[in-house]
Amino acid sequence: MTHSNNEQNVKEIAAAFVRAWNVHDMDALADLFAKDADFVNVLGMRMRGREEIRQIHMRVHRTVFKDSTLNENSTSVKFLNPDVAVAHMSWTLTGHLTPEMKPGPQRDGILSFVAKSDGNNWMIHAAQNTDTIPMGTIIPQD
Amino acid sequence: MTHSNNEQNVKEIAAAFVRAWNVHDMDALADLFAKDADFVNVLGMRMRGREEIRQIHMRVHRTVFKDSTLNENSTSVKFLNPDVAVAHMSWTLTGHLTPEMKPGPQRDGILSFVAKSDGNNWMIHAAQNTDTIPMGTIIPQD
Repeated sequence: MTHSNNEQNVKEIAAAFVRAWNVHDMDALADLFAKDADFVNVLGMRMRGREEIRQIHMRVHRTVFKDSTLNENSTSVKFLNPDVAVAHMSWTLTGHLTPEMKPGPQRDGILSFVAKSDGNNWMIHAAQNTDTIPMGTIIPQD
Repeated sequence: MTHSNNEQNVKEIAAAFVRAWNVHDMDALADLFAKDADFVNVLGMRMRGREEIRQIHMRVHRTVFKDSTLNENSTSVKFLNPDVAVAHMSWTLTGHLTPEMKPGPQRDGILSFVAKSDGNNWMIHAAQNTDTIPMGTIIPQD
């Protein structure tokens, strides 16, 4: 398998994450993760293992993310070994609700994940997601 | 080198990150990162490469983080290959300022990073940092 094929395989994980999100199929989303994978979400909450990732995502896709649409803006991939890669997906989210169940403003962020191939399949072993917010909201502009 | 030694080496990166932060030595902090490392900070801003990581951190350590103290609560390490590991460090930050340069409330979060050994040294190739905030602020409680 060529390096270029592998890059495409890792990018396909990002695309599959987005597809699963947008049809709100949290089984399909969880199946992208290794059994002992970690997921740190935008709230800085660490989910441990595929089952917890599935359960937490099912919960939020019944409520605030029920009709949300995730858009993949771009994904870059960097290989650390032929079978281990780090990917960064820049995303935009629309159609979600606030905690008060009102329509929320567009959100932007970065999902990074570490993927590993077992020779046949690439899976996510760790992921972290962070909303992109303006610099001035936490740190003063120079 | 034993696996146990390697785990200690990866944990030492987290400890060194904290030490560098607390003496506000951003050269020492940047030196923990590979030349082409990525760092997604709590604002969802992606820094590309050691130099950008150094410059951005120098900037904020001249202002809001000038007298801040980072505390490492715990760090876990998971190996993907003998020379590649993912670490999660739970942290607490005190002594920092708000964008209005007023004392800020204690912050908690998770820094995850992917480290790789070249046989001699472990370096961070990708890191992402997220503040831990209460679930109810974004997602309704069940």
